[in-house]
Amino acid sequence: MTQSKFPLIRSTKPLATGPPQYEDKRRALLEAFYDKIPAEYRLPEKLLDNPPCDMTTIPSTCGILTPEEVKITEEYDAVGLAKAIAAKELTVVAVTTAFCKRSIIAHQLSCCLTQWFMEEALSQARYLDEYLEKNGRVIGPLHGVPISIKAHIPIAGTESNMGYLATVTEDREDSQMVKILRDLGAVFYCKTHQPQALMHLESTSFWGRTLNPYNINLSAGGSSGGESALIALKGSLLGVGTDIGGSIRGPAGFCGIYGFKPTSYTLPMQGFLPGGVPAELNVLVSTGPMCRTMRDMELFMSSLLGAKPYLEDTRLVPIPWTGLGTSQRGKPLKVGFMTNDGVIQPQPPVTRALEWAHKLLLARSDLFDVKPYHPYQPMEAYRMIRMCYWPDGGIKMRQILGESGEPMHPLSQWTIKDAESNVERTASELIGYRVARDDFRSAFAKHWNAQDIDVVIAPTFIGPACAHDTAWYWNYTYLWNFVDYPAVVVPTPIKAEAGEKYSKDNEAPLSESCQHIRQLWADTDFSGAPIGLQVIARRYHDNELFGALAVLQHALQLP
Amino acid sequence: MTQSKFPLIRSTKPLATGPPQYEDKRRALLEAFYDKIPAEYRLPEKLLDNPPCDMTTIPSTCGILTPEEVKITEEYDAVGLAKAIAAKELTVVAVTTAFCKRSIIAHQLSCCLTQWFMEEALSQARYLDEYLEKNGRVIGPLHGVPISIKAHIPIAGTESNMGYLATVTEDREDSQMVKILRDLGAVFYCKTHQPQALMHLESTSFWGRTLNPYNINLSAGGSSGGESALIALKGSLLGVGTDIGGSIRGPAGFCGIYGFKPTSYTLPMQGFLPGGVPAELNVLVSTGPMCRTMRDMELFMSSLLGAKPYLEDTRLVPIPWTGLGTSQRGKPLKVGFMTNDGVIQPQPPVTRALEWAHKLLLARSDLFDVKPYHPYQPMEAYRMIRMCYWPDGGIKMRQILGESGEPMHPLSQWTIKDAESNVERTASELIGYRVARDDFRSAFAKHWNAQDIDVVIAPTFIGPACAHDTAWYWNYTYLWNFVDYPAVVVPTPIKAEAGEKYSKDNEAPLSESCQHIRQLWADTDFSGAPIGLQVIARRYHDNELFGALAVLQHALQLP
Repeated sequence: MTQSKFPLIRSTKPLATGPPQYEDKRRALLEAFYDKIPAEYRLPEKLLDNPPCDMTTIPSTCGILTPEEVKITEEYDAVGLAKAIAAKELTVVAVTTAFCKRSIIAHQLSCCLTQWFMEEALSQARYLDEYLEKNGRVIGPLHGVPISIKAHIPIAGTESNMGYLATVTEDREDSQMVKILRDLGAVFYCKTHQPQALMHLESTSFWGRTLNPYNINLSAGGSSGGESALIALKGSLLGVGTDIGGSIRGPAGFCGIYGFKPTSYTLPMQGFLPGGVPAELNVLVSTGPMCRTMRDMELFMSSLLGAKPYLEDTRLVPIPWTGLGTSQRGKPLKVGFMTNDGVIQPQPPVTRALEWAHKLLLARSDLFDVKPYHPYQPMEAYRMIRMCYWPDGGIKMRQILGESGEPMHPLSQWTIKDAESNVERTASELIGYRVARDDFRSAFAKHWNAQDIDVVIAPTFIGPACAHDTAWYWNYTYLWNFVDYPAVVVPTPIKAEAGEKYSKDNEAPLSESCQHIRQLWADTDFSGAPIGLQVIARRYHDNELFGALAVLQHALQLP
Repeated sequence: MTQSKFPLIRSTKPLATGPPQYEDKRRALLEAFYDKIPAEYRLPEKLLDNPPCDMTTIPSTCGILTPEEVKITEEYDAVGLAKAIAAKELTVVAVTTAFCKRSIIAHQLSCCLTQWFMEEALSQARYLDEYLEKNGRVIGPLHGVPISIKAHIPIAGTESNMGYLATVTEDREDSQMVKILRDLGAVFYCKTHQPQALMHLESTSFWGRTLNPYNINLSAGGSSGGESALIALKGSLLGVGTDIGGSIRGPAGFCGIYGFKPTSYTLPMQGFLPGGVPAELNVLVSTGPMCRTMRDMELFMSSLLGAKPYLEDTRLVPIPWTGLGTSQRGKPLKVGFMTNDGVIQPQPPVTRALEWAHKLLLARSDLFDVKPYHPYQPMEAYRMIRMCYWPDGGIKMRQILGESGEPMHPLSQWTIKDAESNVERTASELIGYRVARDDFRSAFAKHWNAQDIDVVIAPTFIGPACAHDTAWYWNYTYLWNFVDYPAVVVPTPIKAEAGEKYSKDNEAPLSESCQHIRQLWADTDFSGAPIGLQVIARRYHDNELFGALAVLQHALQLP
């Protein structure tokens, strides 16, 4: 495929090509998308051919946005925007226009979108402006707030896919969450890129490769990497991702934004995985918000849960949401620091971010009781979750790829490797996995309880955003899926710097993988990549996690 | 096997016999049990050979219990007993002695026990009496309360089995719930009978057949039928059952007591199903209390959940328990009456019990908004749950039976019939079941919501307790397992009477099954069998269910 036909930064690493029928179908989809982009929103060829390493300032300086549009996209969060719209300081049409324009700029820089529908969005915006004018009140707490949606999540009248070319589908109905958000006043305008099979911690698919806005030689993360790149470039301020191994948290960390993976069955996700995925027999997918301020996560959670989605989908657990208002009852928050998992010592800027947080919390002994935290047997969880992900032995993946001739990406091959088989697992084998999982979870909880902590602060990844096609190590995220603990990635002010070295304490590699990670650190220029840290609480303690975030926000000066 | 060797009422219907090695092993187990029964607790041969149809007055009149023991076992519930012990009006030793004696009398009448350990119970009782004497306070809210436990649930130092002779095991450790109950002060003294495979709505196994205390020609129900017979005969006031298709509620209804099946993962059950059961890939087992007063269910729930079992077993959903105190917020309770499921019109006394409740609630329009309720496609749920119960095609059941030569009971054969196969279901097939289940649950919830009701009052079974080996129709209980809604069986004052007829409105059978049930009604004398009704709430609305029960208790004058 010749990418140069399309107004998009050429990835630093080419994609594998497939047979002609695959390339033709793919080209047709891409052309249909790019043909929709008005000429006046196209970035100059010269910029696309010679992009800077850090692309974050391009949207506001490229001249496509008006000063007001720059202001709308940069100076508000979702809470602020909803307030300004309700107060009639901004129209929904103006807000929608600004985000539509900025999102398509962001796409040309990072390949973050798979769908872009400005006309439909503006029609929704006009309806909302008229509603407010006519009724004198907003339609709901998200009146006029633009929300971006990950590609596999159905929005009526747009296309979705499950990470394969052969699964591209036109959707006639909103999925449950989309419907609720729409009823609450949200405006949809784009869908965001995800990797093959939805199972990489990067976002490379038949559609393209998503680049990191802070450093185009790095990945934006995955599988919700379109979201993270788009939000970092301020083409969205609030998006929806999904996570079964790190797919919200990884990209949030790679791009310096918030990402929340709640306990499973907290948020509505009917329609997200049509036909189901066999992994869910033992490891559940979670869905949650990605955004740039803590209060936007709260807005998202409280608005959605206020709609009582559990009455429609009885899988959802109706624990009342108290969120950031959850009280600590006057006790110091017991915070455990996990500096490594015993297998891979994170690369230097991650350790620096942990030290930054550790120091700030230690200074507030009135608020925090800081201690070390060691996870229970993470490599055992790793071994088990990799079997649980593919109880069909990867048969379906190979079949779907074969349908269109789509080449298997090395990261897809890697994800099925341990479970790969020509026969599926049986009911008896699967209940064996279940029992092993539950035994592990109990032992893990016991071990956590013995350390007497409320929340853990941990790395998000083995380093900053990784170089393309190198996200082999899910160590710091999958663990919390296997035990199904809620986890938020929070952005820190720490960014990777050239020439940083491992500290003397961490000179000896912990394992062969750790040695490999050190080699990757030596080989790559990570300059400018932001560092996010994970904050984790016990299963179903999502409220307690947010209560803890409220205390941490002040101490760490989080946005 | 000659049953006459053992001091036990001969069942009205003999059990199938197996090959000699099976009969020898079975006999050895039974002899070991019966040898433990002191001569002075044995009922006279004459009574056992010529029992009355209604056995409920035998324990208090047989002369084995002292007047104080009769009083202890008849005039208290668990709440009252705990209070009397805490006030030192009764010793734990006296209480334990009374229940040990009455339970072994109950066993000789109904074959309700599988383990009986008076010495160990008395040792625990003495410890508790000394504790109270020494510390001036009780050890916990269940100090001295005797609790009976279903056979498959491990208690350290006793035997458990999974409903097959080949699975009899000596347990070295308490299961999680038993440990918590013990720590709260409960005294264990017996374990109770359950059917082959734990999958009948009766209780007939290698161990024997449990008889209904109110009518020995009828079943005590199952699979927690040892519990229901024992509690109805007042050999226990509080017991623990499990339920994946009606196994708490069926026997509670058959024997005129309370039985509560909470939403799954409400109460702790680590250790209940060693090795796991494949059915749980898509239908979860629930556990809950069986007892004679509403406040005893509350005591059980609040005591157990107050111990925060979710910190140890993270499968448990930590919704705070408000129980009977859950407020109706000044609104009338919307009660839907389900008179039949569209397939089988219940036998006459069940309809009479529904009419009794309906009339009493209608008279209190200040408290209740009474309406009809029609369930969503119950036969579709029936078809699906029967496939979900045996994803291994029944291979394991046949294998375990084969190990000891145990003959397959016709009700076991019936339970695997639809799913029977020589190959197991695969991961892809099982996720297909999951998706179908979740689609059904959503449609069911939508249908419930459209009828705008808080709780449903429904039959527990297609009739009163059934004649032995005829519990083929699980219509009224399995449905609430498939959607995982919490359901309580409440006892009513209604009992089956000889000669009752179907009303003119219900003269036409609804189906072939309905015709069969009418034939069973004509063929059997159900006289004296009590009728229990189910009260059901939405999934995870266990608190709301108990809030509703508190209102219903007054209107229906429930114990």
